[in-house]
Amino acid sequence: MTTLTGNNFIAGETSQLGTTTFTSVNPRTKQPGTVEFHNATAEEIHNAVAAAAEAFAQTRTYSAARLADFLDKAAEEIMALGDELLQTADMETGLGLPRLTGERGRTTGQLQSYAQILREGSYVEAIIDTAQPDRQPAPRPDIRRMRFPIGPVAVFSASNFPFAFAVAGGDTASAWAAGNPVIVKGHPGHPATSELFALAINRAIAATGFPAGWFSLLQGATVEVGQLLIQHPLLEAVGFTGSLRGGRAIYDTAAQRKRPIPVYAEMGSINPVLIMPNAVTARAETLAEGLAASATLGAGQYCTNPGIVFMLDSAETQNFIIAYRDKMAARPAGVLLNEQIESGLEHAVAATQARSTVHTLTGGFVVDGDAFSFANTVMKTSGADFAADAALQIEHFGPVTLFVVAASPDELTTALQALHGNLTATIHAEASELDSAKPYFDLLREKVGRLLWNGYPTGVEVVYAQMHGGPYPATTAPATTSVGFTGIQRFMRPVAFQNLPDQLLPEALRNANPLHIWRIINGVNSKDAIQ
Amino acid sequence: MTTLTGNNFIAGETSQLGTTTFTSVNPRTKQPGTVEFHNATAEEIHNAVAAAAEAFAQTRTYSAARLADFLDKAAEEIMALGDELLQTADMETGLGLPRLTGERGRTTGQLQSYAQILREGSYVEAIIDTAQPDRQPAPRPDIRRMRFPIGPVAVFSASNFPFAFAVAGGDTASAWAAGNPVIVKGHPGHPATSELFALAINRAIAATGFPAGWFSLLQGATVEVGQLLIQHPLLEAVGFTGSLRGGRAIYDTAAQRKRPIPVYAEMGSINPVLIMPNAVTARAETLAEGLAASATLGAGQYCTNPGIVFMLDSAETQNFIIAYRDKMAARPAGVLLNEQIESGLEHAVAATQARSTVHTLTGGFVVDGDAFSFANTVMKTSGADFAADAALQIEHFGPVTLFVVAASPDELTTALQALHGNLTATIHAEASELDSAKPYFDLLREKVGRLLWNGYPTGVEVVYAQMHGGPYPATTAPATTSVGFTGIQRFMRPVAFQNLPDQLLPEALRNANPLHIWRIINGVNSKDAIQ
Repeated sequence: MTTLTGNNFIAGETSQLGTTTFTSVNPRTKQPGTVEFHNATAEEIHNAVAAAAEAFAQTRTYSAARLADFLDKAAEEIMALGDELLQTADMETGLGLPRLTGERGRTTGQLQSYAQILREGSYVEAIIDTAQPDRQPAPRPDIRRMRFPIGPVAVFSASNFPFAFAVAGGDTASAWAAGNPVIVKGHPGHPATSELFALAINRAIAATGFPAGWFSLLQGATVEVGQLLIQHPLLEAVGFTGSLRGGRAIYDTAAQRKRPIPVYAEMGSINPVLIMPNAVTARAETLAEGLAASATLGAGQYCTNPGIVFMLDSAETQNFIIAYRDKMAARPAGVLLNEQIESGLEHAVAATQARSTVHTLTGGFVVDGDAFSFANTVMKTSGADFAADAALQIEHFGPVTLFVVAASPDELTTALQALHGNLTATIHAEASELDSAKPYFDLLREKVGRLLWNGYPTGVEVVYAQMHGGPYPATTAPATTSVGFTGIQRFMRPVAFQNLPDQLLPEALRNANPLHIWRIINGVNSKDAIQ
Repeated sequence: MTTLTGNNFIAGETSQLGTTTFTSVNPRTKQPGTVEFHNATAEEIHNAVAAAAEAFAQTRTYSAARLADFLDKAAEEIMALGDELLQTADMETGLGLPRLTGERGRTTGQLQSYAQILREGSYVEAIIDTAQPDRQPAPRPDIRRMRFPIGPVAVFSASNFPFAFAVAGGDTASAWAAGNPVIVKGHPGHPATSELFALAINRAIAATGFPAGWFSLLQGATVEVGQLLIQHPLLEAVGFTGSLRGGRAIYDTAAQRKRPIPVYAEMGSINPVLIMPNAVTARAETLAEGLAASATLGAGQYCTNPGIVFMLDSAETQNFIIAYRDKMAARPAGVLLNEQIESGLEHAVAATQARSTVHTLTGGFVVDGDAFSFANTVMKTSGADFAADAALQIEHFGPVTLFVVAASPDELTTALQALHGNLTATIHAEASELDSAKPYFDLLREKVGRLLWNGYPTGVEVVYAQMHGGPYPATTAPATTSVGFTGIQRFMRPVAFQNLPDQLLPEALRNANPLHIWRIINGVNSKDAIQ
């Protein structure tokens, strides 16, 4: 077993300058862990960012192949942590070994996939417009552009994905893949897990000869650690996954800097599901089962958890809701990540229940016992009431479903129009009702980053086309994704070169195309060399 | 001649609800024009944005071909304004007919180029990952994504490009090309020019059957008009070209909204030029001439004006500076756009001159006379002094050059490292000194959006590869460009579809690829249909 230090990890060295500490808490027993983790100090935060800036002076010119080698090595070292990683994370999050084993695969797979993207090389988005020396009235210069890394990136870990959206999760992987050093603010819910990741990453850094400032881990259970990090003048961008409140605070701080920096915050989402009438008629049982499984997955602690279900009123709809309620009531209540999640969920559900327009069908209470837990909860309101009350769009981060039942297609449309930005929306419909579903599809497309058909939003594939984002308040940067291979673009910036000699151009832009990448040359996709 | 109304143009109708007015001023005579232009009121601003949102309900599903037809028609109607447009703009800006004729061609050419981009179709960036039904442990869904328009966009006109960065300039053209209605806040320096553009645009709207809310023009000489516009809840994004102060105020207001929206502000830039020793030796005369021509183009009122020149100290360098000073002193002082530009320039130059480290070699004063004008100005400081004093990076928006002379390569490096973000940087060097220039090239690449070799930064080609942007304070969105065909991406947002039936997919994502566009299918660029 690894002996944990409870220290911060600043550019390869452990650091313990602060005097305030915190521990993780086992959510199954509410018992604190034995290791005291040190809140990072202002000096440690500065040291981490300064070291990152120093590292960037080297890594900014690393080849894609070299960056890829690091990503592969990091994945290897994470796997080498073995069962200890899974057990530590399970003790800190209560997510269970099967889920954590899967999440580990997703996390290392993501690092390896980025490595493949780098080796393929086209991710730099090379665009070339060749000179036209004879153009009138003036010659056209040769202009070539590609994306470059931006510099030190801060990543704020999420609580609910201790691997995939945490120390070496998607934000970190994509920032690294772009060529940027990363300073991680670890989530205080799983500091031991974070420390194990830091050990693995530092081994990968040593093995690949990367500069030590390529990675730092700041532990912290206070708001100040994050605020000081965002305010550091050498920081260039922020990745965040968490609550609307936390994300907005970070966004505001970054926007108020003397030199503002972008914040890619993935925040709250209630992930509307629309069930069309024929779908209810055709497959009520499988739909209720599938939806309940999705809504309770990981005790509902998914940013893509289907929190709100829209239906047109009918006898079938009312029967469906009763069947769904029974399924939710019969499923055992899951373990929540920590006390903050439990109390936050309790308050959010209570606020919704306090509306006179909302009826609770099951659940709605904290489950007494050793563990942090909340009863699987089903509530119901009308389309008109939903449309009239923005407070009903509060996120219930847990196993909670709010049905919105509309008396007419018009009421349904009004309710859907009232929706704020979300990560996903889902439509369940039969082939027979494509025409009637089309207007709702068009409407929901304005509201989300990803639109699913006859599926469940939990589960976000790591592929090229993925779009894990969406209009505010789902994110602070609706045109970007935090999952999938275009996520790397958040941490790069295009630079154009005008009439640069070929030997000074980066390889990706040279006439001969030595990297054999896809480039847009005078408007046409091509792998050809330029004669 | 057109009879100007002085009204706002709200969704095709003239509107004059306000009681406060302003006039333009002829910068050659300092005489006010005869038409009173009405500052837009809160009600008019609301009407414009609401009409844009209403128009978007239609235009969001317009085909690229239909959008292209509008852009072509708008270009045609702008040309149909004939000489009156040129003469009106000349009277309001003093830029001269030859320059304005060229700028008109750039503006209509930009609209037409976007139309071509739309007809080609690949700009939606279609990405498709096909399903893997047999994948273990779970099937992989089909995920396809493309970019869509975002909704009403506000564009703030610049003073210095009354056509190309104004009512129907690059921001408007790219927002329209993306499929978004635009509300233009006209620049108070050229309201008559703006009104002529509004007339032409409304003719194009009528001819192509677009909804009236597709375009509105708000006139305004007050800060309030812009602030109210940005705060409107239905607005989705802002394009701005102008001063750092103005752009930052807009950015701050947008960031403080309940629902923040992106601001693409192109702001201040001093556009460093580095002249390497061999270049001075080899071609001092042509360099001094070319640089002086670039620095005084349009009376220096270019955002890409080369405002600061870095050189290593030597006898040749000192001779070069003297020769350059003489050329600048010999060139006639140009006409400045308006009183605000003249007084702003006077204050900025005075602030620089007030530093004990700066020597004025020529100019530095307002030129008395009928016109707004400022003497061509050359100043000089040392590399060490520049590096130590951030105040020396103030933008002098006009015909002003500050030489920064470094005693050693180290001092030069330190001075360049101190540079803030800029739109451009330029290196003049001989083929013999590529190796010695390389470190400076690497360094400057971090600071700018475009890096030129042996050229002059004024003149920004409208091509695919263009990058007219750069780190703050050059822009508020360093990863985006306001010139060139990727500028359209600022006003679009990707949406992914999971397992959507082919008949519900937008044409760009359908299996058959009916638009014959480039798509990335399972990681490979292709125009193929999906079997």
